[in-house]
Amino acid sequence: MSEAAPLFSVEEYRGRVRRFQDGMKTAQLDGLLLTTPADVFYVTGFLTRFWESPARPWFILVPAHGDPIAIIPSIGADLMGKSWLTDIRTWDAPDPADDGVSLLADAIVETIPNTGALGIPMGLETHLRMPLADFERVKIRIKPRRFVDATATVQRVREIKSEAEIAKIKTTCKIADRVFARVPEFASSGRPLDQIFRDFQIALLQEGADWVSYVAGGAGQGGYGDVISPATAKPLEKGDVLMLDTGAVRDGYFCDFDRNYSVGPPSAAVERAQDALFAATESVLETLRPGMTSADLYAIMVNALHDVGATAGGGRFGHGLGITLTEWPSFTAKDTTPLREGMVLTLEPGVEVSAGKFLVHEENIVLRANGPELLSARAPQELPKLE
Amino acid sequence: MSEAAPLFSVEEYRGRVRRFQDGMKTAQLDGLLLTTPADVFYVTGFLTRFWESPARPWFILVPAHGDPIAIIPSIGADLMGKSWLTDIRTWDAPDPADDGVSLLADAIVETIPNTGALGIPMGLETHLRMPLADFERVKIRIKPRRFVDATATVQRVREIKSEAEIAKIKTTCKIADRVFARVPEFASSGRPLDQIFRDFQIALLQEGADWVSYVAGGAGQGGYGDVISPATAKPLEKGDVLMLDTGAVRDGYFCDFDRNYSVGPPSAAVERAQDALFAATESVLETLRPGMTSADLYAIMVNALHDVGATAGGGRFGHGLGITLTEWPSFTAKDTTPLREGMVLTLEPGVEVSAGKFLVHEENIVLRANGPELLSARAPQELPKLE
Repeated sequence: MSEAAPLFSVEEYRGRVRRFQDGMKTAQLDGLLLTTPADVFYVTGFLTRFWESPARPWFILVPAHGDPIAIIPSIGADLMGKSWLTDIRTWDAPDPADDGVSLLADAIVETIPNTGALGIPMGLETHLRMPLADFERVKIRIKPRRFVDATATVQRVREIKSEAEIAKIKTTCKIADRVFARVPEFASSGRPLDQIFRDFQIALLQEGADWVSYVAGGAGQGGYGDVISPATAKPLEKGDVLMLDTGAVRDGYFCDFDRNYSVGPPSAAVERAQDALFAATESVLETLRPGMTSADLYAIMVNALHDVGATAGGGRFGHGLGITLTEWPSFTAKDTTPLREGMVLTLEPGVEVSAGKFLVHEENIVLRANGPELLSARAPQELPKLE
Repeated sequence: MSEAAPLFSVEEYRGRVRRFQDGMKTAQLDGLLLTTPADVFYVTGFLTRFWESPARPWFILVPAHGDPIAIIPSIGADLMGKSWLTDIRTWDAPDPADDGVSLLADAIVETIPNTGALGIPMGLETHLRMPLADFERVKIRIKPRRFVDATATVQRVREIKSEAEIAKIKTTCKIADRVFARVPEFASSGRPLDQIFRDFQIALLQEGADWVSYVAGGAGQGGYGDVISPATAKPLEKGDVLMLDTGAVRDGYFCDFDRNYSVGPPSAAVERAQDALFAATESVLETLRPGMTSADLYAIMVNALHDVGATAGGGRFGHGLGITLTEWPSFTAKDTTPLREGMVLTLEPGVEVSAGKFLVHEENIVLRANGPELLSARAPQELPKLE
């Protein structure tokens, strides 16, 4: 990015705030308090890796009417000053005596009616990014105003991506597409997996990622087990299936998909698993429509696997995607979230090849009125081979 | 890392838990509940980038006596199974009906006496990494047991690093040392800052970082302003000072230091600022001893700057370092934390060169009985030049 080109227009941010405020009205909320990197970025465009430091809390207060207020450590004043926000209040953090508590409580008291309800996300897949003891202090300071759950208010807005957001995610997906095509350059029999993970990240940066927030993968004979461990120095061997998965970031927007490779020719069991997973994703691409639920989407994939005699495996079969690596909903039998036009989703079916050995496919899509549009280049039907 | 070489011995982890339990006894805590990546890693060695997904909570329950219990999503069972923990309880997360609440509450009820106090970190620089609504549910389920603040209990243990931990941090610092020596390979007049940031990350991976959790920096004529923004595409120019700062990670341990470079010859004001910062760090290296406080350390640096007529600038003048990019304490006038042998710290004095233009130096040290030992190679007294 360059100084001449902000990530989004001011109208984009104003539209987001207006949709929050519409949702707040429906939920009878008099304000919304946001504390996480993703929620702050969504409202303001404030993008920094400085969140990696847990030292300081950051607050955005969205009133029922009017523009948001930023209540932030002074070290962020310059960067927030470049955003569309004009009411930016700062303190020197970290302050062991009062780490923003008074400044935040004052802003709430000033903005929210005496008997008002202030929403914070406190449900599934959320957390409050501030010290709990300070939150209790704020609660007391703002009485009789009270905090209530605003998870749905935030999620129903953030989960529908604008065309500008979809373009950002597509750009990041294309970076990963180019890197997955280059995997044979650095992955082959005899190369240690930890070096492959490093080269994979290097390639993502070379192809335009600003940073690489997530890399996972696995390699094993006829499939892999655990896919959340860091890579070991174990070299690839003939008969291994290698999986690489990335959440690379460009302009604050993530991709999240994987690709599988066979080191030498795959076994018949691996070929069957590959065919089953390819078919499961195909059925979603053909039949998914807005109005279905997350559980419906999960069922499409599970049924497609069952149809060819494959055993569903792994965890959930995908999730939302955008300004965090994973967003709600989750494609499981238990999640009944309606899927709507404009949602960006990952399709992530898994198959158990043999006891404790899995294959997992992943694609990124945006759900359009007439069905899914791929954001990642469709994985090949046949497993690509490595030497 | 390789499968044959776990990060630390079981004795290392047992020692950490014993020290937590000693602290819990002093603080009259009957248990400790840990939810953040760093705290979970500290007790178990569970290291994964999967924390990047906010979808699932993870819990470690440290009882007053005996070994910790892991209450975690089933997707982590394999990896946690490789740790020294034997009591690992899992559920299929995310579960919209009960996302680990029952499993966690049951473990607490089983482990903590009826009238017991369960510690969680809720003070400065902490947060609770689980949905707030679920925390409230757990609170009700475990009554009359109650949650109390355990910030000090966790911090007084984690802030003293073992020799094995110090060796890990030193390894990561050496990776960054090698990369800072290579900066002239990819940074010179005309090169855009965002490409320099990418090349910097690539070099860190090439030199052995497992991943690069943090990169910051700045470039500007006679100093830089804001140092937390992402890089723009603006090319370096003669007269710029370039600063690059990184929190690279190897085996879960961070470095956190920066280096400054002058593009062409520096101005007299930049040379004076450089001299002042070098002198401020030197006085700490010469005079810091265990028993001083964070505020004392801050005063050493501020006084050294004043002695040469420089204006202190930037935020805090350093902090703790280890398994997060920044740990407590903070080197400010307000932080009275005693500095003790075995603490790993960053020294980060800043100077205002001219209105809104700063220079910031950073070094990583471990505090020994007889004073600081450098973990980063000392920055040169004279600013290195770029073409």
